[in-house]
Amino acid sequence: MEQTKLMNMLGIKYPIIQAGMAGSVTTAELVAAVSEAGGLGTLGAGYMKPEVIRSTIAKIRELTAKPFAVNLLIARRRLIDDQMIQNGKRMIRPMEEQLGLQEHRTAIPEEDYHEKLAVLIEEKVPIVSFAFDIPDVQEIQELKKHGTIIIGTATNVREAKVLANIGVDAIVGQGSEAGGHRGTFLGTEPHSLIGTMALIPQLIAAVPTIPIIAAGGIMDGRGLIAAVALGAEGVQMGTAFLTCKESGAHPVHKQAVLHSNDQSTVVTRVFSGRYARGIENAFIKQMKGSEQDLPPYPIQNSLTSSLRSAAATQGNADYMALWAGQASSLARELTAADLVEKTMEQAKKRVAELHQFRL
Amino acid sequence: MEQTKLMNMLGIKYPIIQAGMAGSVTTAELVAAVSEAGGLGTLGAGYMKPEVIRSTIAKIRELTAKPFAVNLLIARRRLIDDQMIQNGKRMIRPMEEQLGLQEHRTAIPEEDYHEKLAVLIEEKVPIVSFAFDIPDVQEIQELKKHGTIIIGTATNVREAKVLANIGVDAIVGQGSEAGGHRGTFLGTEPHSLIGTMALIPQLIAAVPTIPIIAAGGIMDGRGLIAAVALGAEGVQMGTAFLTCKESGAHPVHKQAVLHSNDQSTVVTRVFSGRYARGIENAFIKQMKGSEQDLPPYPIQNSLTSSLRSAAATQGNADYMALWAGQASSLARELTAADLVEKTMEQAKKRVAELHQFRL
Repeated sequence: MEQTKLMNMLGIKYPIIQAGMAGSVTTAELVAAVSEAGGLGTLGAGYMKPEVIRSTIAKIRELTAKPFAVNLLIARRRLIDDQMIQNGKRMIRPMEEQLGLQEHRTAIPEEDYHEKLAVLIEEKVPIVSFAFDIPDVQEIQELKKHGTIIIGTATNVREAKVLANIGVDAIVGQGSEAGGHRGTFLGTEPHSLIGTMALIPQLIAAVPTIPIIAAGGIMDGRGLIAAVALGAEGVQMGTAFLTCKESGAHPVHKQAVLHSNDQSTVVTRVFSGRYARGIENAFIKQMKGSEQDLPPYPIQNSLTSSLRSAAATQGNADYMALWAGQASSLARELTAADLVEKTMEQAKKRVAELHQFRL
Repeated sequence: MEQTKLMNMLGIKYPIIQAGMAGSVTTAELVAAVSEAGGLGTLGAGYMKPEVIRSTIAKIRELTAKPFAVNLLIARRRLIDDQMIQNGKRMIRPMEEQLGLQEHRTAIPEEDYHEKLAVLIEEKVPIVSFAFDIPDVQEIQELKKHGTIIIGTATNVREAKVLANIGVDAIVGQGSEAGGHRGTFLGTEPHSLIGTMALIPQLIAAVPTIPIIAAGGIMDGRGLIAAVALGAEGVQMGTAFLTCKESGAHPVHKQAVLHSNDQSTVVTRVFSGRYARGIENAFIKQMKGSEQDLPPYPIQNSLTSSLRSAAATQGNADYMALWAGQASSLARELTAADLVEKTMEQAKKRVAELHQFRL
């Protein structure tokens, strides 16, 4: 009856990690509730300003003394091509008009992951996870010096090997079923849209000494045991936590997920310039023809920001980014503690049933 | 220690089904070896003429007295648009020239699944599986009258419900990881490219009384136990059997699979007019731009047939259809009996290890 290396390392009771979804989902309440329940709550700090990250960490610590993680999206400064921005603006203008919006004013996103990472180091955040790219070598060394556990995200074997080389402590293997942004930083889609069932054993073969956390399509105890059977030491669940009571997801987003079916989602880059999986809506369909011509992340993300926030204010699902994974139809409205508990109960039951299964 | 409903129904010792891959892979020797080893061998009769199906069934029966299946591809007669054929021919002409071939002579594929199905009924084949579409209601009734077990293929929930309505005995849930042709007959890609981890629990929720067989990304005992943890009663493995000694796959195809990596495959319709997953090669890349304009299956399949067979004769991997799933890098060169045995050994070991896992 051993704990896995991963569970020991993270100091958690159950091998369940709540994904660090950037945006409104990962409230301090959600993060703390998951950690209190024995899993690992993660603050999705990808779009937060450094001072907000700091105050939210303080709030999480008021709510729990248990370990938690903060997730950063690693995006570096890009050369901004004005023509590209004008094209991008032109393409989304008709949708802005539909929502009665003024033309979006160019706000080139300021690169600030370095500053955010500095906050995490100062705040002695126990676990830092990241996606989209890799931090600088000095930053990794600095985190390690402070005893921070580092979790990277890989969508393919090549990325896992790079993450192993820079010294991460664990790797989230993000299968193609996963909702939200693809972590892909080497290689292209669709080659990196690898199903969880195929991805996990290949990651383990490639980096056998690093614990792998399976993500993508996992909604309950069956998925947890399936992932562990494949060789993962834990799971990361996003969509399943998105519909929880403590989640800050927009009510329209929660309802869209709860009423989705197995064919509801697609992978698209129209919202942010980066491929992500979400429920197909009017914006995705209208922009489909221009998808390849849109500016890259984070420019497109910035260009669609007023559109998305106006849609949220109006409760208009047509122009919101309704991130969700391919098993979204299995999402339930539970408290985070209930979700963790039910997942573990079902997992235990499943292991007992597997023992009955005649092999 | 119960056998599953599926294993009882099929009369097999182990819950492993060898996929009925159309083409040269499923030799009588492969089918018989899998069934002899305790799994279910399947003759991929999709492209075979009725008389060849009959003689191959006789050969399988010489080699084994155990149950086996025959897989048919259900394709109905289409209105043939001459302009469409001319366009299709024009698009592949440059590749034919590269291989030193005369222009392909139009051979409109004759629709003959009804005739093939009649052979299966006459030959009292114990198990019939199918994909691409559904047989006529009278055909299903005829099969049932003869006590034939019927297995359909679904890539999404809607298809599974239709299959349940027509009375199939079991359903293969084909995840997006799977190699070869997509079985999709309702709905479109990419909506029906659902990862195995997400697909299986949703199929079970939709048709809880029908045994589900998981397919896509399953290469060994870890995948088998993962599938069973998700609720499947068995697995269907294609790529894992394709590289077996008894497989009739072209040596160049086998080598391509054995040397593939996790990012090698893509889903394409350039070979047959129907979406299928295979190792990306020159033909797929060259035709990518015209992919949406190509004629539908089986017309495109016919138009590329001389190209593919010339490539096979020349041992030229650039123009062969190198079907493979997303976990192809885990394929091994074993006998079919060894693959079945090792899969079961690893599955048993995995269940024991799951019991050790602290939950």
